[in-house]
Amino acid sequence: MTQGPKKEDPSNCPFCGIFERGEPVSMVWEDAQVAVFVVLKPVNLGNVVVVPKRHLPYLADLDDELAMHIMLVAKRVAASIRECGLPCEGINLFLADGEAAEQEVFHFHLHVYPRFKSDGFGFRYDPTPNFVLGSRAEMDEVAEKIRNHLK
Amino acid sequence: MTQGPKKEDPSNCPFCGIFERGEPVSMVWEDAQVAVFVVLKPVNLGNVVVVPKRHLPYLADLDDELAMHIMLVAKRVAASIRECGLPCEGINLFLADGEAAEQEVFHFHLHVYPRFKSDGFGFRYDPTPNFVLGSRAEMDEVAEKIRNHLK
Repeated sequence: MTQGPKKEDPSNCPFCGIFERGEPVSMVWEDAQVAVFVVLKPVNLGNVVVVPKRHLPYLADLDDELAMHIMLVAKRVAASIRECGLPCEGINLFLADGEAAEQEVFHFHLHVYPRFKSDGFGFRYDPTPNFVLGSRAEMDEVAEKIRNHLK
Repeated sequence: MTQGPKKEDPSNCPFCGIFERGEPVSMVWEDAQVAVFVVLKPVNLGNVVVVPKRHLPYLADLDDELAMHIMLVAKRVAASIRECGLPCEGINLFLADGEAAEQEVFHFHLHVYPRFKSDGFGFRYDPTPNFVLGSRAEMDEVAEKIRNHLK
């Protein structure tokens, strides 16, 4: 882990700016624990994030109940985005957990992306180094490694 | 929606092939409702999916309890992947819901991607058409549209 203490500091956190310091936001929905709001740089119109109000940088910082609640809220918001009249033929849910995973704001947020054909958004793959089909024996080995560390 | 009935048919479904027809799989973990297994074409080593055992094509087909359970399992698996010795400095959770959102197997599955720096994986953006910073008024309008369709 290359994550230092600074980038997770709440005083630098734009989401804490919203919740704690009254920065402007286009709020979709909120309850005591989480909020859903429009992101400043949307991939597509209707791109929102589901965010815990407490400054919790990473997935592992959420207790189970909060993680499940966030999924429930994301599911409801996804259904709403599909029906609300914005261009939307599909939905991506996306979490970036850690800088190597392209997390940019170090306060947990689950992205909800409206998608439509030819929206110019998607994944890039570099098939050569990592995007490889393993043998069954290699895949079993990976499965075992992960299983052995499950809690 | 351009989604026809055919691609959601369980008889064509590779995941139902695993659960119903005994196709080989490198299973990480399973309970009565969901399974976690290694994908055939991993983005990175340790790329797994969290999958309901019932053939439910889309997020909207999951009941709330199942959606929440899937998030809980994903959280545990993500923690395990971070600790199991595979290259992993971060995690992405990713759901493709609908063909326009790059869903390829029409049986719900939440991807868990291990990430590390220079892994050649990530997002591509085309900033010109959609990746736009809206005015506050435009963002408020988007928020209101979504809010008005929340159930």
